[in-house]
Amino acid sequence: MSLAGDLLDRLAEIGADPPGITREAFGRGENAAMALMTETARGLGLDCATDAGANLAMRWRGSDPSLPPILIGSHLDSVVQGGNFDGAAGVVAGLAAIAALKAEGFRPRASIEVLALRCEEAVWFGLGLIGSRSLLGRLPPGALDLPHARGGRSLGQCIAECGGDPARLGAPLRDPRGIGAYLELHIEQAPQLIEAGQPVAICLANPGNLRHPHIRIHGEDAHTGLPHRFRRDAAMAGAELALALERLWRDEEAAGRPMAVTIGRFHTPAERHAMTVVPGEFELSLDLRAYDAAHLASLEAKLQGLVGAVAAARRVEIDLGPRSSAAPGAMDATIQAELAAAATARGLAPPRLNSPGSHDANNFAAAGVPTGMLLIRNEGGSHNPHESMELHDLLAAIDILGLWITQRTG
Amino acid sequence: MSLAGDLLDRLAEIGADPPGITREAFGRGENAAMALMTETARGLGLDCATDAGANLAMRWRGSDPSLPPILIGSHLDSVVQGGNFDGAAGVVAGLAAIAALKAEGFRPRASIEVLALRCEEAVWFGLGLIGSRSLLGRLPPGALDLPHARGGRSLGQCIAECGGDPARLGAPLRDPRGIGAYLELHIEQAPQLIEAGQPVAICLANPGNLRHPHIRIHGEDAHTGLPHRFRRDAAMAGAELALALERLWRDEEAAGRPMAVTIGRFHTPAERHAMTVVPGEFELSLDLRAYDAAHLASLEAKLQGLVGAVAAARRVEIDLGPRSSAAPGAMDATIQAELAAAATARGLAPPRLNSPGSHDANNFAAAGVPTGMLLIRNEGGSHNPHESMELHDLLAAIDILGLWITQRTG
Repeated sequence: MSLAGDLLDRLAEIGADPPGITREAFGRGENAAMALMTETARGLGLDCATDAGANLAMRWRGSDPSLPPILIGSHLDSVVQGGNFDGAAGVVAGLAAIAALKAEGFRPRASIEVLALRCEEAVWFGLGLIGSRSLLGRLPPGALDLPHARGGRSLGQCIAECGGDPARLGAPLRDPRGIGAYLELHIEQAPQLIEAGQPVAICLANPGNLRHPHIRIHGEDAHTGLPHRFRRDAAMAGAELALALERLWRDEEAAGRPMAVTIGRFHTPAERHAMTVVPGEFELSLDLRAYDAAHLASLEAKLQGLVGAVAAARRVEIDLGPRSSAAPGAMDATIQAELAAAATARGLAPPRLNSPGSHDANNFAAAGVPTGMLLIRNEGGSHNPHESMELHDLLAAIDILGLWITQRTG
Repeated sequence: MSLAGDLLDRLAEIGADPPGITREAFGRGENAAMALMTETARGLGLDCATDAGANLAMRWRGSDPSLPPILIGSHLDSVVQGGNFDGAAGVVAGLAAIAALKAEGFRPRASIEVLALRCEEAVWFGLGLIGSRSLLGRLPPGALDLPHARGGRSLGQCIAECGGDPARLGAPLRDPRGIGAYLELHIEQAPQLIEAGQPVAICLANPGNLRHPHIRIHGEDAHTGLPHRFRRDAAMAGAELALALERLWRDEEAAGRPMAVTIGRFHTPAERHAMTVVPGEFELSLDLRAYDAAHLASLEAKLQGLVGAVAAARRVEIDLGPRSSAAPGAMDATIQAELAAAATARGLAPPRLNSPGSHDANNFAAAGVPTGMLLIRNEGGSHNPHESMELHDLLAAIDILGLWITQRTG
């Protein structure tokens, strides 16, 4: 049995919550997974340390202390009843690559650190990527006061309980200029690699987003018999806006500008539901994703135009409400080339793909750290129990990772 | 002050529930309104009787007892915080017309009965038109067991408490073939007469409907990053179906086939709302209205076609769920012509309009009674506090009604 396969099996036991896997951030599941990684890392002779954000760093000391360390990271938490591999595969891969290199007698010049970053999933605090935000001084104002979805403890309390020091968060815990590279392995959250018949892809960029969590459309409640020309139907306006955004998406993709539109909440208000009333109120959320900042800005302008057109045509008011955004994370071109060379040396021809999801890698890229990602084939999507990464695909990625480490700092 | 204006003011006091009017069916409001009508009718010398459905009949005996009676009816209940005129205007109009005819010394050959029908609004038992259903033997199976929305008493109990005899309901309480005509005055539930600048319209037909209260769309929950070609987004499928139905509506109207589409519930499931999940489930209700049975049947076939097309294009399942329907109520052509002649004699040129809403008149028409309706101008829609019938418009309609009575049975 491979170390990677063994660790993933033990993580599945830790998180077992049929039909899926739950490893609660700052809770039993994530903590037990952290303990398993620590025990494994110590067995490999690595130094383990917890930072002020309660992240775990497992360090293989390099022969030249003057060189900046190479970080291999991901996260160990999951969504509720999600899959076993989202996040955990990347941490396990770092340890497995080190184990393999040690077995080969390799000794790195730069230190290699495997990072288990806290609470990447947004479900726990309504804010994601918390461990990498803490590490790089990128927590938004007020974040430490956010309540945990289970039990309501504040993020600051949770970090303190898990060995961190929330008072020290704010400034970066380490200078990004002192980090040689950040590499993350992660399952792909879409079946593009299934479609391509390839085990691994080299990531081009992670998406940034523009979010409006609470868009409201105000029309006018009316009797079922009201002729069309008099209606101010908020739900029909919502339907038109949704399909206009979907058309925008298709047009942008056709023009070679990748993006995504997700409308997760899309509803007449539950407390006013009536079969025989033309709905005067409608609500929706909007998540727009794209891979460079200028594209996101142009999409925001187009959104404003669509909203104005629908509001005018339907005689409704559309209130976009609160807005948040996250910067896209472009992967380092040199690291992409190095990973491609390593893959070629292993007989693979990995496609270069945009990542469907955002990752802790976004924060490293945004902080100026040379950042790379390998995406691993996965049939069943993520954030659900149907994730289905094959172990041999992960092992192929670990092999590329190990070769990349030896070539970068051998 | 006119009798009609005085009665409507007193009804507004009875139902006062700021910002609107509430006259609970089989409750305080409707009962007090019934008492006010009884007192007024007795003052006019009419005979008052309660039938087994607890409806009130106020009879002006005609000189020729062999002639079938003419019924002038509507209802006295309202929705919660609705307006003062929906229903009540029609009952008041019957009494006011009789008062005017008596003052002129007119004596009808056929008897004239003013009917105050119970519980027309569907909000009280989830079933509307109850008084006319009781009268004409058109209550659906199980109706007497339905619970009242306030307090939960069964419909049967409510009818008994208000002087009716639920054990006698089932067969018609009077033979429809023994009714000479049924005429109903009602506010229009749309602003078509405002638009036309006319106080009164002659109704062509009341709509029938096809209803699917619980349509479900099943797609697949997915990660925000999933590319479009892999998505099975149930909400986008709902949006496409809604807009396709709206296009159908516009096309049918353009082809001279009036109808209406109302989607009152239209929503991702509240218990699964998440901004960052592509929604795999969606729900909606559908109310399709049209004015003749063949048109409704053709619309149902078109609905099936649209559902199949959207399901195939979006790779989702669309389950239409339970289905109910109600027959359209075409108004009698002779009565339409007589009402037009009476209006012309009064210097008016009323348009002929389809009624936006269904009314007790539907049940009389469906039972084979020659049925007519006058619709009265109303700016603010109905089922809300903004109804705004002007008294002089009602008086114009009462004048037409009185002339029609004298011409029909003078």
